[in-house]
Amino acid sequence: QRMPTLDYLERAARRRIPRFAWDFLEGGTGADVGIAENRAALDAVKLVPRYGAPGPVDTGVDLFGTRYSAPIGISPVGVDGLVWPGATQLLATAAAKARIPYVVGTLASASIEEVAAFAGDCTWFQLYGLPGRDHLVTLDLVRRAEAAGARALVATLDAPVRSKRPRDLNNGLVVPFRTTARTVRDVALALPWALALAKAGTPQFANMAPYVAAPATLPKTAGFVQSEIKGTFSWEAVKRLRDAWPRALVMKGILHPADAEMAISIGVDGILVSNHGGRQLDAAPAAIDVLPAIAAAVGSRATVLYDSGIRSGLDVARALALGAASTFCGRAFLIGLAGIGDGGADYVAELLTEEVQVAMGQLGVRDLASLKDVERRHAGAFAFRP
Amino acid sequence: QRMPTLDYLERAARRRIPRFAWDFLEGGTGADVGIAENRAALDAVKLVPRYGAPGPVDTGVDLFGTRYSAPIGISPVGVDGLVWPGATQLLATAAAKARIPYVVGTLASASIEEVAAFAGDCTWFQLYGLPGRDHLVTLDLVRRAEAAGARALVATLDAPVRSKRPRDLNNGLVVPFRTTARTVRDVALALPWALALAKAGTPQFANMAPYVAAPATLPKTAGFVQSEIKGTFSWEAVKRLRDAWPRALVMKGILHPADAEMAISIGVDGILVSNHGGRQLDAAPAAIDVLPAIAAAVGSRATVLYDSGIRSGLDVARALALGAASTFCGRAFLIGLAGIGDGGADYVAELLTEEVQVAMGQLGVRDLASLKDVERRHAGAFAFRP
Amino acid sequence: QRMPTLDYLERAARRRIPRFAWDFLEGGTGADVGIAENRAALDAVKLVPRYGAPGPVDTGVDLFGTRYSAPIGISPVGVDGLVWPGATQLLATAAAKARIPYVVGTLASASIEEVAAFAGDCTWFQLYGLPGRDHLVTLDLVRRAEAAGARALVATLDAPVRSKRPRDLNNGLVVPFRTTARTVRDVALALPWALALAKAGTPQFANMAPYVAAPATLPKTAGFVQSEIKGTFSWEAVKRLRDAWPRALVMKGILHPADAEMAISIGVDGILVSNHGGRQLDAAPAAIDVLPAIAAAVGSRATVLYDSGIRSGLDVARALALGAASTFCGRAFLIGLAGIGDGGADYVAELLTEEVQVAMGQLGVRDLASLKDVERRHAGAFAFRP
Amino acid sequence: QRMPTLDYLERAARRRIPRFAWDFLEGGTGADVGIAENRAALDAVKLVPRYGAPGPVDTGVDLFGTRYSAPIGISPVGVDGLVWPGATQLLATAAAKARIPYVVGTLASASIEEVAAFAGDCTWFQLYGLPGRDHLVTLDLVRRAEAAGARALVATLDAPVRSKRPRDLNNGLVVPFRTTARTVRDVALALPWALALAKAGTPQFANMAPYVAAPATLPKTAGFVQSEIKGTFSWEAVKRLRDAWPRALVMKGILHPADAEMAISIGVDGILVSNHGGRQLDAAPAAIDVLPAIAAAVGSRATVLYDSGIRSGLDVARALALGAASTFCGRAFLIGLAGIGDGGADYVAELLTEEVQVAMGQLGVRDLASLKDVERRHAGAFAFRP
Ligand SMILES: Cc1cc2nc3c(=O)[nH]c(=O)nc-3n(C[C@H](O)[C@H](O)[C@H](O)COP(=O)(O)O)c2cc1C
Ligand SMILES: Cc1cc2nc3c(=O)[nH]c(=O)nc-3n(C[C@H](O)[C@H](O)[C@H](O)COP(=O)(O)O)c2cc1C
Ligand SMILES: Cc1cc2nc3c(=O)[nH]c(=O)nc-3n(C[C@H](O)[C@H](O)[C@H](O)COP(=O)(O)O)c2cc1C
Ligand SMILES: Cc1cc2nc3c(=O)[nH]c(=O)nc-3n(C[C@H](O)[C@H](O)[C@H](O)COP(=O)(O)O)c2cc1C
Repeated sequence: QRMPTLDYLERAARRRIPRFAWDFLEGGTGADVGIAENRAALDAVKLVPRYGAPGPVDTGVDLFGTRYSAPIGISPVGVDGLVWPGATQLLATAAAKARIPYVVGTLASASIEEVAAFAGDCTWFQLYGLPGRDHLVTLDLVRRAEAAGARALVATLDAPVRSKRPRDLNNGLVVPFRTTARTVRDVALALPWALALAKAGTPQFANMAPYVAAPATLPKTAGFVQSEIKGTFSWEAVKRLRDAWPRALVMKGILHPADAEMAISIGVDGILVSNHGGRQLDAAPAAIDVLPAIAAAVGSRATVLYDSGIRSGLDVARALALGAASTFCGRAFLIGLAGIGDGGADYVAELLTEEVQVAMGQLGVRDLASLKDVERRHAGAFAFRP
Repeated sequence: QRMPTLDYLERAARRRIPRFAWDFLEGGTGADVGIAENRAALDAVKLVPRYGAPGPVDTGVDLFGTRYSAPIGISPVGVDGLVWPGATQLLATAAAKARIPYVVGTLASASIEEVAAFAGDCTWFQLYGLPGRDHLVTLDLVRRAEAAGARALVATLDAPVRSKRPRDLNNGLVVPFRTTARTVRDVALALPWALALAKAGTPQFANMAPYVAAPATLPKTAGFVQSEIKGTFSWEAVKRLRDAWPRALVMKGILHPADAEMAISIGVDGILVSNHGGRQLDAAPAAIDVLPAIAAAVGSRATVLYDSGIRSGLDVARALALGAASTFCGRAFLIGLAGIGDGGADYVAELLTEEVQVAMGQLGVRDLASLKDVERRHAGAFAFRP
Repeated sequence: QRMPTLDYLERAARRRIPRFAWDFLEGGTGADVGIAENRAALDAVKLVPRYGAPGPVDTGVDLFGTRYSAPIGISPVGVDGLVWPGATQLLATAAAKARIPYVVGTLASASIEEVAAFAGDCTWFQLYGLPGRDHLVTLDLVRRAEAAGARALVATLDAPVRSKRPRDLNNGLVVPFRTTARTVRDVALALPWALALAKAGTPQFANMAPYVAAPATLPKTAGFVQSEIKGTFSWEAVKRLRDAWPRALVMKGILHPADAEMAISIGVDGILVSNHGGRQLDAAPAAIDVLPAIAAAVGSRATVLYDSGIRSGLDVARALALGAASTFCGRAFLIGLAGIGDGGADYVAELLTEEVQVAMGQLGVRDLASLKDVERRHAGAFAFRP
Repeated sequence: QRMPTLDYLERAARRRIPRFAWDFLEGGTGADVGIAENRAALDAVKLVPRYGAPGPVDTGVDLFGTRYSAPIGISPVGVDGLVWPGATQLLATAAAKARIPYVVGTLASASIEEVAAFAGDCTWFQLYGLPGRDHLVTLDLVRRAEAAGARALVATLDAPVRSKRPRDLNNGLVVPFRTTARTVRDVALALPWALALAKAGTPQFANMAPYVAAPATLPKTAGFVQSEIKGTFSWEAVKRLRDAWPRALVMKGILHPADAEMAISIGVDGILVSNHGGRQLDAAPAAIDVLPAIAAAVGSRATVLYDSGIRSGLDVARALALGAASTFCGRAFLIGLAGIGDGGADYVAELLTEEVQVAMGQLGVRDLASLKDVERRHAGAFAFRP
């Protein structure tokens, strides 16, 4: 096991994919302060183990009526095919194999129909708003997700504006993408990635194909994404989603208890506490620091989920101790693909699951619910004004 | 957009201007501790976004009866022409174009009259005290600023003594300036700067020309500055400024609520909270840390402005959330000029304005006033003794 | 004295032993965060010296009826022979010579009988649980330890599951161990270690020999260890140890006052506060930070001992000031062997003892008990929920 | 002014003196944690300037009836001649010229009589205890200091035991000193130092000459120092000093208010708060952090002085704001000598005095007493148990 932790995979990934792909995956907004703070804030959560009651641990978790094997899921990463060509299908297969939820993105490189075929009841669908023509396309995506059998609809709230990604801008990773000498050199230095590209083909915005005039070339779908996906959902729009979608509805990107409150009043089923992995607002608090206040506010009225900064099973245990029912990772699974290749997402699923087991065993708890009782220190916990 | 943030511009600037110019711009006093703390203190201000109410944002701000397009202005940087030859005119033009206030300095390299011709009602004038002959020159400068149409007079309080700038002293950047082998080498390595110098000519203390015997050579005006500009204004002198100047009067460099109180009792219109970008007292608190207490003390009796450490639109949002009506940057605009060349100040104005919009959009506020309601954490906020 | 502190020895050790041995000794779990925090937390404990009452200091300590010369002991390091071939015997001899307790491990490379022959009443025995066949082997080890004359039985509680050691996994240091090109190169670069290996022979799990079919080859005993040693002791099993062992019983690895309470209710004599040197749970608090709460809970009902992160006599003084009766070090003694060779453990014992004397003298205390009265600052002290 | 601050001098010094001399001067005890914390703790003291009342500043200070020109003095550095051959005379001359007190050490390389001849009423004498023959030599030194006209006797309390100086031990800088190949190479690389040595001759323990059989060779005096100077003063011994010495008596190295209390009850005149520049106990609090509590305890019953970590006039201002009447520096003046050569101590005296003036001017205070009223933040201030 030459890659015992995500850190090792990360080092390998850096060498194996082009610099613009690496920067796209790892970069944040502003000066990447938010990313560093997610890490530091998680590390600062201390948990005190109890001993003397060893026994087998159960990592299983029920989410919206489906049982998954571990409190870990795959967060949506738009244009994941840029990080590793073919990523969407590989993630879908890995999710199904590990029996963990995969929140496939509106901007994934395979369509929701294809993904559902692979991932079955591990399929969840992430939705961005396309407000044009009174949300015509938005609602069509919802309809398609339902038809495909997605178990949950995850509407992303935290991208009201296009946030600034300095590394991408500096790399010229913008629409329309123009190949430069630097791009060519970067790709040439990243042979494993180039081979994966040759096999999987150029990443597409597969979900968008029906909405542009055939043939759905990349420039056309990219242009469509660029012009149509904008703003976040208004609460008004959330109400319409609630009406249109019969299964579990999750709001992704909540950082303030009052927004959780609002979402619950509209009838959502899940609150995904997240700061988008530090990619939206460099002054946002570390997501883990707002988790306790939101979990307390939500209580049992909705399922609290968490992502942002999770890099190990121990991080998963931290989030569960602080109030989450389950967690998701964005970068971790793509780091797996980039660091190992096509089997990388399966590897990460196993790695994290095993680490959750070890953390639980070490902490002296046998089931996930008991994590909430673990003695902890969380000096960074955010105190909201009443 | 190869230069997506100030950080990128800064890296470019370092390569393009001579070392003594770079050190002059970036250096502080003592061990540059104050500069690092301005940065760290701003980064430590956390803001919690709210979602679900997207909409267009308005960055416009009224200051002393004039409307500007964004809560950003250009702070005075004396001898700016050393950093980028021709800077004063370029800043004046950029301010007018972006419709943001430009506080041109007593020590700028173009005169207040020239600047006002370019900048119109974006012209503000920064005043240093020349106590000689009962403030004869000071008051003449005030008169000239009024005649030129400056909208606000900004009197700098925070330079009661010549503070120590170790890097400048080490570089021999003192009056009289003597060219050394190192200077020559530094200039030779900084071609873009040398070309700008050839075009714009040696920077002058243009505002001082009337006060020395013609012809106003650089050695003569520099000697005049060296011997005449000294100390800060006494409150007595501030009263005389108040009497002499009919438009908005701003005190620059306030760090203590009691000084704000005193200024208000004399009838000033604005309080510019600033620690001079960390250049005066290495033990001074980060300026952002005293802002809330001063804003609370001032209330609505005067307009609270802020500078020191602002490097992004997000920093602007932080300062506004903590009580400022608008902000200013000293180094940022010169970093633009140094990093890009003549268009650099325009570029920075656009960059910061766009970043303010993104930050507001991301925070879920539509106008600047709402920033004050954003949930925040500001552990460094200074508690003054009652 | 070219090696005045452990830091100097550590630098030497790094050069003298193979990389896999170094990583085995120094590595932790996860990202080695716990190790760094043990260090930082100890450094953060400030002690205020008192002057004016100089005098000779007494470092002697009574533990469970035996007098030792200093409040320092050797913690068990399983497979210590990997770090320095022949370590177990060398440690036993050093302990006897310095008159400090040596907690020899279940997994040591010499048997408890051999160790006791060298170490006499400085022998303590560390026990891991072998739950198979109703703890048959566990109890046989207890019997042997008693027969050999061990003064205390130290049952390790903090290894309920096999924790993850990323560096070992990356180095392929797993059972069965396979020699790779990298191993060979590492050994070749570490001549002193290779010579020690030639002299001492391959490290064995000497205590396990009776339990496998003769001849007890390394693969056989290693396989036995791998399959039989698992889980921690349950409180039920602790009760059986209590019944089976007539002398001092110590529980090692306690981090929570409630576990100390439980242990005391079963009748244990000692509580060894430890986070296993940061090797079990990367989110565990620094061991020193939980020491005061546990010492307060235990009071005089049991003897509180401490290990984890001790690197100097000053660290010993810190732990005693915060409530420990005596301390132990795992890595320090092996760093001595690795850094100097066969005399290294004796050297470390002298070094630490002398440092304890200096620290006491400097603090103005004459005996160990007075350390508890030293004025201190310990901002990191953990506050447990009531 | 190519050397505008101590930092610049320090960099120069490092290149100009042999490594063992550098390590001797800069090194601390343990892992040099205490030195770093003195610096960090001073930097963490924030002072808020007040403006609007400019005016000339007065740095003069009365200490025990003598007026000095600035609140800065030279702390004793034993064997100063090792750092810069001829140091003691150069320091004495510099003190007299700048009119600041020089606490010449028992272990200085010129005798108290020689120093007093140069330094006049700027002479203070630092005393170590030589308890042999009922303090015969100690009291003879006191008598000589009185005869020589020293204004104050400064008895060092904080060296009850020989503290460990890892760098010196590693460099072989111990009695008897043996020249090694490394020593020779170090000296050869430090030409300025070698020249100074050639001029000034080998540093001597000049004060000890009368107490060894003539001729007083270095090995003889060094051996005498090694065997006779030991332990700190007991309070009993302090009483005898009080009786024997008619002028100002200062206790050096106080870190605990209760020790200050004890000293005052014996009738001492001054309390020098110091942690010996971080050289005695690596766990001691930063000296500046205990200053306020000690100053509060002492009140006006004695004169509170401060040293440890002072590197600028701003640091002086910090210490005065927190309760000291005046400050001292150990390393700073020797860094001056090492960095510049024979004129270096004069240079440092001017530099620090000018920096104190600038700091006062910038803070808006005109005399030293007003520094105590400056608004400050001192989060590290130590709270002693009642
Ligand atoms: C490269 C990248 C692209 C992302 N794209 C999306 C997206 O299209 N929709 C979305 O809701 N979240 C997106 N996210 C956010 C992730 O869903 C998730 O919230 C985040 O990655 C969690 O932090 P982590 O990467 O530290 O696990 C993206 C994240 C990354 C790193
Ligand atoms: C090189 C330089 C020169 C300056 N000259 C002046 C000046 O002549 N008058 C003045 O009031 N402030 C002066 N300042 C301070 C600025 O007006 C402003 O307060 C400061 O730069 C704000 O911090 P920032 O650079 O981090 O934005 C100067 C600042 C710099 C960096
Ligand atoms: C390489 C290594 C192996 C260890 N093996 C054991 C062991 O077999 N049993 C045990 O109870 N503790 C074991 N420990 C933990 C030590 O007994 C001790 O708790 C720890 O090393 C203390 O921290 P320190 O190394 O910072 O002194 C081991 C520690 C190390 C470093
Ligand atoms: C190399 C060196 C030698 C010293 N020798 C003595 C000494 O002989 N007697 C004494 O009282 N203090 C001695 N000190 C301590 C100083 O007097 C003073 O307390 C300390 O240097 C203050 O800290 P600073 O160096 O940061 O200014 C010595 C300090 C150094 C650095």
